[in-house]
Amino acid sequence: MKIRLLAATAVVAFTSSLAIASEAVVVNQAINETQAIEAQEAWCSALININSTYEKDGQAAAKALAEKVIDGAYAYQMGAVLFKPTLTVNPQTFRTTRAGALSYFVGGDPSFSKDTGFALKGWKKCEPENVAIFIDGNSAITMGKVHFTDKAGKVTTVDKTWGFVKDDAGQLRINLHHSSLEYQPK
Amino acid sequence: MKIRLLAATAVVAFTSSLAIASEAVVVNQAINETQAIEAQEAWCSALININSTYEKDGQAAAKALAEKVIDGAYAYQMGAVLFKPTLTVNPQTFRTTRAGALSYFVGGDPSFSKDTGFALKGWKKCEPENVAIFIDGNSAITMGKVHFTDKAGKVTTVDKTWGFVKDDAGQLRINLHHSSLEYQPK
Amino acid sequence: MKIRLLAATAVVAFTSSLAIASEAVVVNQAINETQAIEAQEAWCSALININSTYEKDGQAAAKALAEKVIDGAYAYQMGAVLFKPTLTVNPQTFRTTRAGALSYFVGGDPSFSKDTGFALKGWKKCEPENVAIFIDGNSAITMGKVHFTDKAGKVTTVDKTWGFVKDDAGQLRINLHHSSLEYQPK
Amino acid sequence: MKIRLLAATAVVAFTSSLAIASEAVVVNQAINETQAIEAQEAWCSALININSTYEKDGQAAAKALAEKVIDGAYAYQMGAVLFKPTLTVNPQTFRTTRAGALSYFVGGDPSFSKDTGFALKGWKKCEPENVAIFIDGNSAITMGKVHFTDKAGKVTTVDKTWGFVKDDAGQLRINLHHSSLEYQPK
Repeated sequence: MKIRLLAATAVVAFTSSLAIASEAVVVNQAINETQAIEAQEAWCSALININSTYEKDGQAAAKALAEKVIDGAYAYQMGAVLFKPTLTVNPQTFRTTRAGALSYFVGGDPSFSKDTGFALKGWKKCEPENVAIFIDGNSAITMGKVHFTDKAGKVTTVDKTWGFVKDDAGQLRINLHHSSLEYQPK
Repeated sequence: MKIRLLAATAVVAFTSSLAIASEAVVVNQAINETQAIEAQEAWCSALININSTYEKDGQAAAKALAEKVIDGAYAYQMGAVLFKPTLTVNPQTFRTTRAGALSYFVGGDPSFSKDTGFALKGWKKCEPENVAIFIDGNSAITMGKVHFTDKAGKVTTVDKTWGFVKDDAGQLRINLHHSSLEYQPK
Repeated sequence: MKIRLLAATAVVAFTSSLAIASEAVVVNQAINETQAIEAQEAWCSALININSTYEKDGQAAAKALAEKVIDGAYAYQMGAVLFKPTLTVNPQTFRTTRAGALSYFVGGDPSFSKDTGFALKGWKKCEPENVAIFIDGNSAITMGKVHFTDKAGKVTTVDKTWGFVKDDAGQLRINLHHSSLEYQPK
Repeated sequence: MKIRLLAATAVVAFTSSLAIASEAVVVNQAINETQAIEAQEAWCSALININSTYEKDGQAAAKALAEKVIDGAYAYQMGAVLFKPTLTVNPQTFRTTRAGALSYFVGGDPSFSKDTGFALKGWKKCEPENVAIFIDGNSAITMGKVHFTDKAGKVTTVDKTWGFVKDDAGQLRINLHHSSLEYQPK
């Protein structure tokens, strides 16, 4: 059990190699928390970028960018992604395929007629706030809030879980994404 | 990429060992989908049991059982569980500690004064319906619906993600649990 | 701790899915012992094939086949393989690169002038005998004897450890291979 | 594919957390190369200590220490360790049980009558020299030379593979240990 509090400040780690070997090749398929946090930040940046591309160049350009983002950041090429977006409804709640994810982000797919394009909703800011990170080794999961600010300054907060795996090339990919609006007691 | 459709029917797997060795010791820390599904069923059974214990023997008995369930089924002893229950609110949305989980299930903890005990709400049936399972190796995540039926026959459905790890003793433990009510478009 | 004795007999596993879902997508990056044993058998078959190709078609053909085998069965494309072949000497004991592995199996590389081609030594039979298998999840290691029989019927036995990882495509790849002649007390 | 050359010099890593959260709990079951190298150093130190305890206090004291070392550093409690010591012979080449490991290190067990106690051979220095490290995530393997210097100053070098897993408490444990004398061409 290694538990640490990850402070949002810079830390300086002093790593002293004890081995005699002057050079050992290291292949590292583990994920560390910095990589997980950077992947979250990349997701947020991509969302903002898709929105600004949409505002500047229209839906087709936004869609082209979203495809690139999905192919680069999600793990659909491994077989499936466990994706429950914030605003989907039955019977299309879950988007385990690339097409379902794309439609959720930019809409315009008649197979998912209720999607209006989450990434096109004027987001100007996207800020993850982690409450916990669990690194299983070659996979990692994070849980926390994500705060989205739109062009009117209105903030929407969701509860979000992300799961990451490392592909053969050493890149993190999202294999799990569960997002939900905060519970509103009546 | 190994993708399979897991049909809800029995399958017969024929495993023929090719090795010469008449006996090799096998230590297996991987998780398979049967184990993940059994862990979901065990969670559901535990929920029903806590409720019936509550109805029969009161809150203290229900709490004692819930403690046993949490200690047996969750991974709090590994440091933290990423737990976002269905009905929690800010600033206590997340229950990364054992105390927070216990309070959510059976209430009665002044530190979590808004908890009314999710496991005490008269549940008679609890049915997981998986849409996807991703086995990372020594960890696994599942996503799908869970349908809860109360004593009046009313069904509540939630979107649920579970993550499982195997402890040193080879037992599955929940290290991730994100539950949310279905999105209701206005 | 899940320990089992893996008997060299066929076993019938009855897997009954308990989930309601009629179809859940399963992505499985875990390794099981059958896959590990099949990978060992594939390695043995490849060795015999390289030798018979050599006897029939010469070194160039054997080398071409060995390249295919290495690219298909080892994990060099992930960065490095921890490979200590049976018969190598200082300062080229370890073959962490593809070129070093190829030279060990079929010789003919002036950069590894002491290599005579282990796969060209007339092997007719190759039989793994596992003593233990440890499955970490997405990786597995095996240890045991491997018995090689040459065309004269002479058997050479080595102590062998193999490590396997699963690539993004779900295929097992050797990331560890430590082979050594049995210790001969003086 | 993340490949790095691990130089035997101190490195300063600057890790800047990007998250908003001032505090996120991190549970980390991954292994890093520093931990692997420290575990190797701990193994070497333990070997030297067992020898000096033997010289000072006799075999019983050395055995008691060896038991402590094995229980603390190996993964026998997970079910088995894949252990091929340097100097063992058939049919007791492999020491997959704790008793077999203990006998190898300190001898004196009639069930393993050929063991003379590797740790009692006067070792004064033990130096790992890694050629490659492969981190699978929650497990890691290392390969290289280990140089043992005895009281007469004579150096014995072996080819050694170690595998490490992290237990529930976050401690590295050896689940694989393959050691062999260097190959001597005739």
